[in-house]
Amino acid sequence: MKEEFFSVVTPETVFSHIERFSPVATEQVPLDRALGRVVCENICAGENIPGFDRAVMDGFAVRAASTFGASELNPVYLVLKGAVVMGRVPDLAVGPEEAAAIATGGMLPRGADSVVPREFTQMVDETTVEVHKPVAPGAHMVAADEDFKKADRVIARGTRLRSQELGVLAALGIVSVPVYKKPVVAVIPTGDEVVAVEETPPPGCIRDVNTHTLAGLVTQAGGLPVLYDLVSDDRDALRNVMTTALADCDMVLLSGGSSVGARDFTIAAMEDLAGARVLVHGIGMRPGKPTILAEVEQKAVWGLPGQVASAMVVFMMIVRPFVEHVGGAAAVSTRPGRRVAARLWRNVPSVYGRIDYVRVKLVEKEDVLWAQPVFGKSGLLNTMTWADGVIEIDADTEGLNAGETVGVVLF
Amino acid sequence: MKEEFFSVVTPETVFSHIERFSPVATEQVPLDRALGRVVCENICAGENIPGFDRAVMDGFAVRAASTFGASELNPVYLVLKGAVVMGRVPDLAVGPEEAAAIATGGMLPRGADSVVPREFTQMVDETTVEVHKPVAPGAHMVAADEDFKKADRVIARGTRLRSQELGVLAALGIVSVPVYKKPVVAVIPTGDEVVAVEETPPPGCIRDVNTHTLAGLVTQAGGLPVLYDLVSDDRDALRNVMTTALADCDMVLLSGGSSVGARDFTIAAMEDLAGARVLVHGIGMRPGKPTILAEVEQKAVWGLPGQVASAMVVFMMIVRPFVEHVGGAAAVSTRPGRRVAARLWRNVPSVYGRIDYVRVKLVEKEDVLWAQPVFGKSGLLNTMTWADGVIEIDADTEGLNAGETVGVVLF
Repeated sequence: MKEEFFSVVTPETVFSHIERFSPVATEQVPLDRALGRVVCENICAGENIPGFDRAVMDGFAVRAASTFGASELNPVYLVLKGAVVMGRVPDLAVGPEEAAAIATGGMLPRGADSVVPREFTQMVDETTVEVHKPVAPGAHMVAADEDFKKADRVIARGTRLRSQELGVLAALGIVSVPVYKKPVVAVIPTGDEVVAVEETPPPGCIRDVNTHTLAGLVTQAGGLPVLYDLVSDDRDALRNVMTTALADCDMVLLSGGSSVGARDFTIAAMEDLAGARVLVHGIGMRPGKPTILAEVEQKAVWGLPGQVASAMVVFMMIVRPFVEHVGGAAAVSTRPGRRVAARLWRNVPSVYGRIDYVRVKLVEKEDVLWAQPVFGKSGLLNTMTWADGVIEIDADTEGLNAGETVGVVLF
Repeated sequence: MKEEFFSVVTPETVFSHIERFSPVATEQVPLDRALGRVVCENICAGENIPGFDRAVMDGFAVRAASTFGASELNPVYLVLKGAVVMGRVPDLAVGPEEAAAIATGGMLPRGADSVVPREFTQMVDETTVEVHKPVAPGAHMVAADEDFKKADRVIARGTRLRSQELGVLAALGIVSVPVYKKPVVAVIPTGDEVVAVEETPPPGCIRDVNTHTLAGLVTQAGGLPVLYDLVSDDRDALRNVMTTALADCDMVLLSGGSSVGARDFTIAAMEDLAGARVLVHGIGMRPGKPTILAEVEQKAVWGLPGQVASAMVVFMMIVRPFVEHVGGAAAVSTRPGRRVAARLWRNVPSVYGRIDYVRVKLVEKEDVLWAQPVFGKSGLLNTMTWADGVIEIDADTEGLNAGETVGVVLF
């Protein structure tokens, strides 16, 4: 027998198909459920924030001009008109040579354009404030529209909401947030040698590991995994479950055998689906070469390698951006994940013309972060639990040298 | 007035208190809800995994010795005894000069100790396999106990479960996972100038931004935020809500005024609580100096700065490890978060003797990742939405130079 022919393509070619798949529908979620969700429209400020001139230090609201020239040797003296009550519109105004006591967060009175911090002042008597340092107009305060101006776009469509964006929405009183639905991703385990996790595998069988691993990765990518029951290696059964999954879900992951037979079989079942087009038959990467991507009614159907470590790497490096794109995220990076920089612990050989992904463990020694390659068979889980992430070795090199700086994509 | 006296301590001193606070109770969760949870006991393998000698390539199960000396010019010829059926115990054995067809995932027959990949072979006739490359014993297979040995500790207590650990649990048939409960963290907003998000703030007031921002950060730290109603600046009210929160929650965050008055007031209300001990009155960091930590009945009560950017930095750099520790995570790092390495875009001055945290935006130019400082008042949200993370400038330097490599803790 000859080596199986794979018409492999580069990851870039795989990513070139991303726009075939449309974002999911939208919904409204309460603000306290919006963390990590992707907004489906531009969010604009309906009002100025904070909405009034606001002190950001404890001190005295003044006209800055009243303090010009003040110094330790030649302080200026201001007449204290009263104190600003927190949360209220001040019932006083500040004129030249006047001051009003104010706490952080207080509203500046009419006439004031700055705040003199307490530490630049001293009370001389009950109505006289000595100021020994000048302030500029606008000092130690936030202007009414300084954080956000009415009608400004404050969060762009396609942004995944972090904690600070929740704060922005709160500031604007947006308690119901327009977001993309979470893309629903079917995870379909296949293989005659696989049994459900609840079962005791008879000799020759193993429990279904990949479904739970992939479900975790789907969740981390912002998707909603739907776990399907095991499908035996039967072309009709496989076609039927894919038909159901395509009706109910936004993307389908087939997690199956790594044998050439299982792979041929998966492609055949995909081609049985009406309107199916197999886009990718193999990817020039290791692990992950026998990955399949088909398009069915604008939905992506993936055939992932059966070895768990391979399936994980393919998901992290290839599938994840598709999940994010379908989930509405703007400007999806096809270089997944911010990379942690580390120095490579030892030489790692690689084959020219193929992207290699090598699992690494991060170890800090004397303030240097080292990436130690974790070698092992891609069917093993133990190497994956030991590793912190993977490094990528480009197709145009024959390896990396010890001491080189590498970017680690964390699990 | 003189500058307010703060008996500030270093972050290290704050972290030295971490062991005062005990981990929360435990519970069992289903495997498909266990992602990101922290296991509360060592997980040991109840059986060998995979449990049988398993092929990891398509090919022929053989005795390795039968292939020794094989080459393209001098191939060896083996008698094909049959094929291994996936998921079944093979009903054949392999002796010297014999082979059995096997697919990836199949169980090795008795007598076989290795797999010859298909690409090293050619079928001569229906019962004769030509092998033109030798294999070593154990090649292209996983031994019965090679992934995990029975009784091995496979996941250590205190590990936060990632996707691959879900796979390990699946492999072992553990469908109910012993984990620490999520630490319940009360977020209590205070301040007379603050109104609930649902309300239209009257002039001089702003909506409650910090509660939602902090709730997001608590969630990201693995906690379960409980949002309390606003408390006015009233010492009795504050003491009462803290008493309730301490009864119901594992940690309390007071998010309140940044004025010196509000701060004194928060400390007073904390000291009113039975058994309270104020551990920290201020931290030598900027932003975040006016942070308070008290211990009440082995629970941490934090008084966070009122400026939202300050509160976020304090949470990320100081509070987060406490939430993780109380949530049972082992070996909590007090250098929170893996840091993304970037080069500093411009000089950043700092003050000797104080740790400065500077917000930065990450910008990639010609394959170099640059950290651009985002300067702005710490009461503003807009700088936080613009920024990707923060860098730390140690207390013993007076700043960083453009071009230096810095570690960015991402939001």
